[in-house]
Amino acid sequence: MTNPTLHRQRFGLALLFSLALPLLANAGEPLPSWHDGPAKNSIITFVEAVTDPSGKDFVKPAERIAVFDNDGTLWSEQPAYFELLFALDEVKRNAPQHPEWKTTQPFKAVLENDHKALVATGMDGILKIFGATHTGMTTDAFDDYARTWLSQARHPKTGKPYSDMIFQPMLEMLDYLRSQDFKTYIVSGGDTAFMRAFAEQVYGIPPEQVIGTTFVTAFQFKDGKASIVRTQKLAHNDDGPGKPESIDAVIGRRPILAFGNSDGDLQMLQWTAAGPGKRFTGLVHHTDAKREWAYDRTSDIGRLDKALDEAKSRGWTVVDMAADWRRIYPFDPPATEQVQ
Amino acid sequence: MTNPTLHRQRFGLALLFSLALPLLANAGEPLPSWHDGPAKNSIITFVEAVTDPSGKDFVKPAERIAVFDNDGTLWSEQPAYFELLFALDEVKRNAPQHPEWKTTQPFKAVLENDHKALVATGMDGILKIFGATHTGMTTDAFDDYARTWLSQARHPKTGKPYSDMIFQPMLEMLDYLRSQDFKTYIVSGGDTAFMRAFAEQVYGIPPEQVIGTTFVTAFQFKDGKASIVRTQKLAHNDDGPGKPESIDAVIGRRPILAFGNSDGDLQMLQWTAAGPGKRFTGLVHHTDAKREWAYDRTSDIGRLDKALDEAKSRGWTVVDMAADWRRIYPFDPPATEQVQ
Repeated sequence: MTNPTLHRQRFGLALLFSLALPLLANAGEPLPSWHDGPAKNSIITFVEAVTDPSGKDFVKPAERIAVFDNDGTLWSEQPAYFELLFALDEVKRNAPQHPEWKTTQPFKAVLENDHKALVATGMDGILKIFGATHTGMTTDAFDDYARTWLSQARHPKTGKPYSDMIFQPMLEMLDYLRSQDFKTYIVSGGDTAFMRAFAEQVYGIPPEQVIGTTFVTAFQFKDGKASIVRTQKLAHNDDGPGKPESIDAVIGRRPILAFGNSDGDLQMLQWTAAGPGKRFTGLVHHTDAKREWAYDRTSDIGRLDKALDEAKSRGWTVVDMAADWRRIYPFDPPATEQVQ
Repeated sequence: MTNPTLHRQRFGLALLFSLALPLLANAGEPLPSWHDGPAKNSIITFVEAVTDPSGKDFVKPAERIAVFDNDGTLWSEQPAYFELLFALDEVKRNAPQHPEWKTTQPFKAVLENDHKALVATGMDGILKIFGATHTGMTTDAFDDYARTWLSQARHPKTGKPYSDMIFQPMLEMLDYLRSQDFKTYIVSGGDTAFMRAFAEQVYGIPPEQVIGTTFVTAFQFKDGKASIVRTQKLAHNDDGPGKPESIDAVIGRRPILAFGNSDGDLQMLQWTAAGPGKRFTGLVHHTDAKREWAYDRTSDIGRLDKALDEAKSRGWTVVDMAADWRRIYPFDPPATEQVQ
């Protein structure tokens, strides 16, 4: 027996599904800029396991916390942490208001582009530069300075804005995780406010999911005007053990996925790995001198030594940038499949 | 001309809508435990203004940040902050491991229920009690202690679990805001970890949206086991100016709605009110000696004095608990409409 109405309704449904197909096709395969291989496979295997409601490893959406280091993990960090380059540029921009800097280290070295003299000022010099460029202003003013620099400054090697030097494969991973109801966080040594100036636009990570190094601030209310001033006193150094500490303080849940690239991420990975249930811990290994930079055990920036040993001994995912990533930056042409 | 298929499809649509009606009815009028009046009206008027996409006051969902004090705003705070009552109970629970407490203040006073001697130990005594009960253990252990106490302890006046002594009208407000894509935060003087032990279950506020007072913690990794230990060093006192400071540090966006009940909330309200665009700032005024407690300008707990003056002079919403709320606690019988 044939029911013409039912047929017509079925046809309607078919039409609806065919309209939806392009959307589904757009969603496509996750991680298109990753070569097929153990790294890509470990990510997808993990995500499928914790999102399968009938599986033993299922994690409910509210607990799908994923944390990412920023420098060297989501964007490049050579020839120096980009935030340090911002600070050096800020010294130059502010020099006219500080004539004493011409004769005072570390500022003199910055103004004279004297790299050797700058390095000689050591950590004390770096802290003075950060103090002068990151504190003593309102939070609103600092946000303006950071955004202005990010829009104007260009990287010395690529000539690109710094916020273009983000890793396309990691962007795809962030998107993939969010499509699977993960909440993606940055947990990084950079200044929280500096990272917030680009994280939402560049990574799709809102300010409340950016955790970093912070200074003590002071609320002020004068003549009906409210402001928050950044003081020179360090509140939290978000590096090494500071990472699990800030994760606990700010998120209050242990992540089920953590990604870093250096020994400064080791404790965050240990904290993540030590939780109950299935966990993912990954490291970006900078192995691509041609398309990015190659460095690890002896580098001053982003040293990857102890964490690399621990990753190898514990079976953590180590991403070999040269072998695992089809392309590095969004502005790179899509690479064709390479013979490994 | 009549097309029977089209009619049938229309009937199908009508059926679908009728099935959806009970759901719509369930959503119902917002804020049913609030009497009609200026307080309820100011909340609804504000929410409708900032969520109307065609209105001049529209705020996009990502920026709909709402912050609430906890003690005295979301739950009661008499005869003492509930967390202090937890700390006193913890002193008693731990006394067998600390024989020296029998002869040492402030612990001796706690163990002997000597209120006068306890008060005489002053802020120094309170800090010692908090140090002994809130620090020196792992974050996991503290969470266990808080949850155990919350499940077992009973309020001296009502005989109810403390987490039942939450304000039904405020629960409805939290739900209403979330239904309108607000992100609801607690920003309160209590210990962050203590509040997280009940905020998700009781208020529907997840741990990452609970901001409070914090202690410096220390990550430890021994024999493959990771833990975070709470130290005695205060990291942030989330009271008064500490509230806008923590909002800036943790959320990184200025709220568009803030609710408190005491002078300790004044700066959070000032910070919220001073932002651009339409803002809502509210205070719970404890005026109901019969159903809850009545106190304001001279109270040691939850003093509402300067903030009340500022609310009146600036037209902030002041909730008169006795007049504005049909019922106080979820366990109260629903009150009938009262003649004002």
